[in-house]
Order: sequence, then C-alpha cells, then structure tokens
Amino acid sequence: MRLALGVSYNGQPYEGWQSQLSGNTVQDKLEAALAAFSQQKVSTLCAGRTDAGVHGLMQVVHFDTPLLRPIASWVRGVNAFLPRDIAVQWAQEVPASFHCRASAVARRYVYALLESPVRPSVEGGRVGWVYRPLDLVAMQQAAAHLLGEHDFSSFRAARCQALSPVKTMTRLEISRRGVYWRFEFEANAFLHHMIRNLMGCLVVIGQGFQPPEWILEVLAARDRNAAAPTFSPDGLYFMGPVYPAHWGLPDRTPAYDWLP
Amino acid sequence: MRLALGVSYNGQPYEGWQSQLSGNTVQDKLEAALAAFSQQKVSTLCAGRTDAGVHGLMQVVHFDTPLLRPIASWVRGVNAFLPRDIAVQWAQEVPASFHCRASAVARRYVYALLESPVRPSVEGGRVGWVYRPLDLVAMQQAAAHLLGEHDFSSFRAARCQALSPVKTMTRLEISRRGVYWRFEFEANAFLHHMIRNLMGCLVVIGQGFQPPEWILEVLAARDRNAAAPTFSPDGLYFMGPVYPAHWGLPDRTPAYDWLP
Repeated sequence: MRLALGVSYNGQPYEGWQSQLSGNTVQDKLEAALAAFSQQKVSTLCAGRTDAGVHGLMQVVHFDTPLLRPIASWVRGVNAFLPRDIAVQWAQEVPASFHCRASAVARRYVYALLESPVRPSVEGGRVGWVYRPLDLVAMQQAAAHLLGEHDFSSFRAARCQALSPVKTMTRLEISRRGVYWRFEFEANAFLHHMIRNLMGCLVVIGQGFQPPEWILEVLAARDRNAAAPTFSPDGLYFMGPVYPAHWGLPDRTPAYDWLP
Repeated sequence: MRLALGVSYNGQPYEGWQSQLSGNTVQDKLEAALAAFSQQKVSTLCAGRTDAGVHGLMQVVHFDTPLLRPIASWVRGVNAFLPRDIAVQWAQEVPASFHCRASAVARRYVYALLESPVRPSVEGGRVGWVYRPLDLVAMQQAAAHLLGEHDFSSFRAARCQALSPVKTMTRLEISRRGVYWRFEFEANAFLHHMIRNLMGCLVVIGQGFQPPEWILEVLAARDRNAAAPTFSPDGLYFMGPVYPAHWGLPDRTPAYDWLP
C-alpha cells in the first residue's frame, strides 16, 4: 500500500530536510517516528527538499508499507513520536502510480519579511529582515519580468542538481500587512536556492539600489555572479506541491493561516 | 537620567521575566546586555512580569543611569548583546516621575489559539491548541459577563501578590482568522495567571461543556477551584502597558502585526 503524508515543520533547529549522518534533519526525525510507530524501517521520498532553516507548511512524502492500520492512526500515532515542531497533518492512501515529486505540477513558497529598524525577536527564525524601507511598486515591476518561462541560471546554486535551469514562474505576488511583507511564489519547479536568490535581488530593487529593469540584466546574464547574495532562509516557507485534482489530496494545511 | 525601553521577546526558551539564580530569564538576559553595553550594573523594573513560556511584544522597563549616550545607541548597542529572540524596540528618556508599572493605566494581552485536529508544529510554542471546534457566540456571551469591575479571585493563582482581586476588564474581544483564534484582553491590571485561567474557562464554554452563564457562577464563587484548569502559556502575548498620552511613549511595536 502506498501512503502520502502532509507534514509541517519549523525548520530552524534542523539541518534541512534530507537525511544526514548527524540524524538532525526533518527526514531523519520523520523516518524515526514512522519506524517507531510501524516497527519497521520506512524510507520516504519528498516533494521538495528544503534547506537548513527553511520551514515546511505542507511538505508531502510518500512511502510503501505492508501495514494495514486505520488511516487516522498514521497521523495521531506518528505525531506521538515526532518532536513538537514537526507534525503529520494528514495521511491518505494513494495508488502506486502516485509519486510525491513526479506527480506534482507546481510548487508554492512564501517568503515572510520584516521591515523594521530593529531585528526580529519574538518572530526570530520565522521571518527575514530588512531595515531599509522597501518600495512595493519597484518590486512588483521587477516581479512582472520574472513571470513566465525563463532560464534562471543566475539564481541557481552551484550544487543544484536540476536537469534544466529553465523553469516557468506562474505567480509572484507581493503584499504587506503592517511591517511584514509577504512574497508568494509558484512555479512548475524551483532550482536550488532560487527563491532566496530571487529575494536577494528583489530586496536590492525594493531598497532602490537597482532599478526594476536590472532584473532583466540579471536574468540575461545566466550567471550566478550577476545576482545579489543569497537571502536568509529564516523567512522561507514551503507551502507545498500542487497536484492534479484527480489525486484527491489536500492542497493546504491549517498552518497556512499562521503567516502574516 | 531615567530611561524607558520597549522590549519584545519569545518567552519559550526562558523561565519567565523575573530574575532567577539560573540566569535564564528575560530580565537576566536584558540586564546582562545593559551591563555589557554600559559597563555598569543596571537594575530594571518592568511593567508586567510574564510567566515562563509567555511572550512579550512590548514589555516596558525603566532604569536610572548616569551615562550620556545617544538614545538610539541604547537600542542598537544593547541589541548587539541580546540573544536573537529578545530585542529592544525603542528607548526614550523619561522624567524621574515616570514609573513603568505605577504610571500604566491599563495592560493588554493577546492569546493566540490553534483549533485543529493536529497539534501545533511550525508555530509550536507560539499558540495554544484545542482540537475540538469552538463556538464563537457562546464564548462572546461569556466574555460579555467578564467586562467591567469584578472580584476575579476565581481566576487568581495561589501565589498572586496583588493587593486586591478586584480588577476592571475594559476589553475582551474574540475573533478568528482561518483556524487561529485571537483573544484580546485589556484591564487596568491582571492577577497572576488570570488570563490563562480565563482562557481555560472560555475554552470549556466554547467547546460546549458549560453554558455561557457558567462564567457567572465561577465569578461569584470567588474560589480558584470553581474555574477550569490554567491554560497553556504557549499562546499568551503581553502586548504592553497603556500610559497616559502625556508621557509620549510608543503604544505598540512592529511585532504587533505578526500575530494572526
């Protein structure tokens, strides 16, 4: 039987999603909890690996298991073995043809950013930070240039394993609530560090150090050195993959309402 | 010279506000940072001591110092010595007649509460949690009974040091945003554990275990045993004291926009 799980986590204390020898990753904690619950070794695949410090609101994993347990027990039972900052939000049986990564047609991320003379405190580790005011219109003009299909090589980390740097950005919306900015990204897929590198450039433009059209130069360069430094992971949230409706999977979890 | 500071903090890693021998309280961290910055011992008074796990969005402290430094350096300089989850938001010179506790005419708190079958994860330590749905109207009816001047002995912790259990509640508003409930409290002063004890009762009423009028019985009993158990500190935020306008102090900090 193939099961899919929706998983949410605070990425701050972990060395990213993917298993490490240290054992201090979200995947390590999840697989340890699955093993404790099922009394069997369980290997998971995920929809989108997140870096150290990046949060997940609806990571999706799948795995195969011979165990027959009430589906709700895969939520309650596994959560009993997880640290308090990781939780299974839902569990659902899926056909063997479902693959959490290959079946996804898009991914969504949100970047939450504090604009304040003072660094974050109560929301430390949960938001990025700028102390200079940002210009919404300038950032929106730059964002418009990023929509559609582009070669995003300039925003790609050196160790990115994607087959192609060409991705299609279908949404990049910027809004603010009080002193907190919200950047919503959706694309068919993202390169390694792509959002943090895009954020670096959008902030440079928002602070007036470069005009909105500069983003066209950066795109055209197809060279990581043309872009701004990689922005902090603190404010980055993987909102989850998007699947065709016929799979019948939830497209969000309650934690969606938490962000500004 | 007397200085007032507005301080925000995540209470989760600390044993409350007030200094302890362990040194692991918000006051200990703040006074250590003030001493490191000013090269002198600094003793602070605060507007409202918070319990272990309770957060502060705008705690206000005052202290006297012979040092003459640019006022902005009391923010930037002290923050450089504070842990990442505590920050001075503003510093202001005040007359010697100002007293952060005695000059306050009211206090504001917010309780943030997740309603979900699954416990908090990404927002762990930042919200309380109920898994049974809450009835807004029932809780609002109960809240209306709490407004005005009452003897709140039933909601008072045994070790409360207040001179009188009679307090005046001027605001108790309940709203929700998605799965997150927000309870806003304002009173001239609060007893020890008063809000967490009120939350326990409001949740019992919201879940239908008691009718709204039960809160009148609890109030009338003037007995802690009449009320529900003390609710978790996780979702409680001290929003700050309210001062008469003539003191010219800020009445909020940027972090106000963070909560649901």
